[in-house]
Formats: sequence, structure tokens, C-alpha cells
Amino acid sequence: MKDSEQYLERKAFFERVLTVYGRKPVLEVLQDPALTCHQLHLADNNREDGIITQLRELAQQRELPIKNHSRAALARISRNGRQDQGVALDVLCPAFQSIDTALDSLPTGARLLALDSITNPQNLGMIIRSAAAGAIDGIIYAKRGNAALGPLVIKASAGTVYKAPLLLCDKLPDALKLCRDAGMAICALDAKAEHSLFSHQHSAGSVFVLGNESEGVSKQVQQIATHTLSIPMRNGVESLNVAVTASLIAFASELNAGA
Amino acid sequence: MKDSEQYLERKAFFERVLTVYGRKPVLEVLQDPALTCHQLHLADNNREDGIITQLRELAQQRELPIKNHSRAALARISRNGRQDQGVALDVLCPAFQSIDTALDSLPTGARLLALDSITNPQNLGMIIRSAAAGAIDGIIYAKRGNAALGPLVIKASAGTVYKAPLLLCDKLPDALKLCRDAGMAICALDAKAEHSLFSHQHSAGSVFVLGNESEGVSKQVQQIATHTLSIPMRNGVESLNVAVTASLIAFASELNAGA
Repeated sequence: MKDSEQYLERKAFFERVLTVYGRKPVLEVLQDPALTCHQLHLADNNREDGIITQLRELAQQRELPIKNHSRAALARISRNGRQDQGVALDVLCPAFQSIDTALDSLPTGARLLALDSITNPQNLGMIIRSAAAGAIDGIIYAKRGNAALGPLVIKASAGTVYKAPLLLCDKLPDALKLCRDAGMAICALDAKAEHSLFSHQHSAGSVFVLGNESEGVSKQVQQIATHTLSIPMRNGVESLNVAVTASLIAFASELNAGA
Repeated sequence: MKDSEQYLERKAFFERVLTVYGRKPVLEVLQDPALTCHQLHLADNNREDGIITQLRELAQQRELPIKNHSRAALARISRNGRQDQGVALDVLCPAFQSIDTALDSLPTGARLLALDSITNPQNLGMIIRSAAAGAIDGIIYAKRGNAALGPLVIKASAGTVYKAPLLLCDKLPDALKLCRDAGMAICALDAKAEHSLFSHQHSAGSVFVLGNESEGVSKQVQQIATHTLSIPMRNGVESLNVAVTASLIAFASELNAGA
């Protein structure tokens, strides 16, 4: 195998690794036989109490490598030294990939979500949970600008983060331009838009962009968008929670199929 | 007018009054010209600072009665002496009514939600917001067992509580029996149910019962239910957030109409 191929394989592998931290989240993953783990990281100054022993035993049952680190090194691995509680775990998320890789293999008429500054971890977790359960082929997620995939998001997602088709990118605008160049509709959700989400169709596929709950979709993304869509509301209600909006997008086609 | 009629009119009036407490929630209501208020209650030991002065002025502009109470009396009015901050306001919610009254005037094929121990205020607020925005004719709400309609719920509802069609009852099982006797389908939502929400139809109307997020629908309600419905999920996701479930119910008919 050539060096470049090895490099790309390793890169694709690491894209699929989510490093979870905190004793409870790590324990929950190790206890779930449906999830595949790569290695357990422990700080070498952890007190060997009940839960640390339990984590070690579960890792040994799975024949996982256990690595000991200084607390500072562990903080670099978890990227959250304040909340990692001396514990981190590399979890393989089979449906994670980079947006570049994903674009080559998306089904015709794919439906993607894109997250434009979803900073509330509860909303992010709920969005991922609903998107994974519904008819969404991928969730475009930039690490910069959105809540990190930490314990609060994992909890709010009811553990579905590990199964969700997250399409990773560095900067959302660049990812959206790639999708637009591939012929997809870029649809900014906006409560004031004239056109209804429920009558939107685009045969080459659509990316539905959810904006920050206070600010809405950013100006930069608005300039890239090809469509602006709203959800029709009654009783003078002015907007919906962003996770509710995501859920309605995720289940729109299921509902239509069942009608 | 006969005494009994006067009594029933007064009762119907008080059913539509929601007593809001806390300085910020009260201020927000007084600042919203779309909302009708009945009277402002203040504790007589409030320090006359900026916000109290502002509340008084707004009430005077609306020609609202302002009543002063001892702190203990105010706590009885707000029903939350710890968090009322010496301030309470009676807000008229035109779409509130008792389930008994509502049953006589519901449209044919009405779609109701019913809340069976929704104890998380954020979920309750989101449910109310989505139901008010979508195609739901009423939300059956028993004070006992559910989160109280306090500041956290109002905030999570984005203020839509005041506009929402809340159908009040003492005990949920009794209200559900009334609806069942009127010919409506009583549908317990349950992630494990065989039948899909999206293919459910019942010409005499349906009540969709949402259970507690950990416990699900209670045994007592299960025994009253005529149907059990689930939402089909992909990727091994086992359940949806209860507010998301409510939103999919609320928008199911809108989605079908738009298809």
C-alpha cells in the first residue's frame, strides 16, 4: 500500500472516532455492546475507586488497550480538562465521515441538515436524535461555532450521537458551497420566509440549514442559500424551537409516505 | 341573571386566568399589547426600585387595578412564595377552558393532546409552543402530575402559553373517559407500539396521550386507551424526545396537506 493511501485510510479512521470523556458517559458506552471502542485513556493520578475499577474491567472484557497519561496529557486528549474526570474513551462512530467523502456517495435526492451555530447542547443533542431517527442522510457539522460533542450533547441525544450520520467539515460555508456546486438546494430555514418547507422539492437533493436560536441563519450562509423556507404556524406563534424544526424536516417524508 | 348563571360565568372567567409571577415574566406580559391582563398584585414590602416602578407605570397605562398584599398573602396568590419576587399578575388566556365546556364545541375530527405527567418544564413549554403553532384543537392539562405553568414553562413556550388552547381538568383519567364516551379515539404514544401514528385516522376525533419521558404512559391511562401508536424510527434509535413527538403530532396534518 502506498503512503498516500495509508494516510487517507488513517484519516478516514480518525474522522470516525469520537473521544468521549467523563466517568458516566464513558461507562455508558462501555456497557453498550452495540458500540465499538478503540481505546480507554486514564489519568495516572485517578484514585482507584469503584467506577475506575469498573471501567478497567469492562475495557479488559472488550480487550481494549488501556493507556495511562499525566493529567495534562489526558486533558489534551479529552479537550476538556475541567470536566473529563480523568477518563476518556475513543468510540468508533461508523456513520461519521467528512463532507468531501460523503458527497461522492450520497443517494440521489439526499436530504441533509446543516447546523449554523447551534450553541445550546440540549438543542444540538435533540437535533441529532431526531435526525438519526428520521429520514436524514447526513448532518453537516462544523466543530467551530457549534456546541462540542460533549456529555451534555450526548445525554440530550439519548446516546444517538454514536449512530448518527455526522458529516464533518472545518467551515460550514465551504461545505455548503460544495453541496451547491453538486447541484443541491441550500435551504435556509427562516420563520419569515414565504415558501413552505412542506411544499419544497428538489430532485438533486437539499441541505436544510438551521440557524442559531436567537440570531437565525448567519449572513454568510444566507448569501450561499438558494432557497428560504418557513414552517406555517397558527395562533400568532412566531417561531418554533430549532430542534422541533429539525424534527419536522427529518420526518416530513415519512409523514407524506404514510398519508 | 340567576345566581347559578353568575356562578358559572365567574367560574368560566377564572378558568381563563393564569396567574404569572416573577418580575421578568410579569414585565414581559405587561409589555405585550396583544395580551389582556386582569390585575397586578404586589407585596407591600417590595423595595420601590426600577422594575417595580416600571410595573406600576405599565399597569396604570393599561388602567389595571393594582392590589397590595402582605408577602404571605402574595405567596398564596402566586402559589410560589419562593420565586414570585413579590410580584404576580392575572393574565387572561382566551383559549383556556375546562374540558367539560370544550367537549361541546370541538370540531368534528378534533385532534387533542393530553399530558400524562410531563414533569420537565422545558418539555412542557416546548409541547405547548408546538401544539399552539400546529394543528391541535386542545391540550388536556391536569394541574396535578404535570409541571406547573410557571416561569420556566412560560419561557420554554416562548410566551405561547397565553395563546394556547389549554383544556383544564382535575384528573387526566376522568377527562380521557369523557372524551372516549364522546366517541373519540384515546391514543397512547408508545415507542414499542405496532401501529404508526402516521397512518392513524379516526373520524370522531383523537386524543394523543404523551407520557412521562422516563416512565411512559401510566398504567391507569393505558387501561383507558383505545389505541397504542408509535413513530417509526431508523438507525436503531429507541425513542424520541416527548416534545418532538408532540410536534410531529401537531404538524402531521399540515405535512400531509402540503404533500
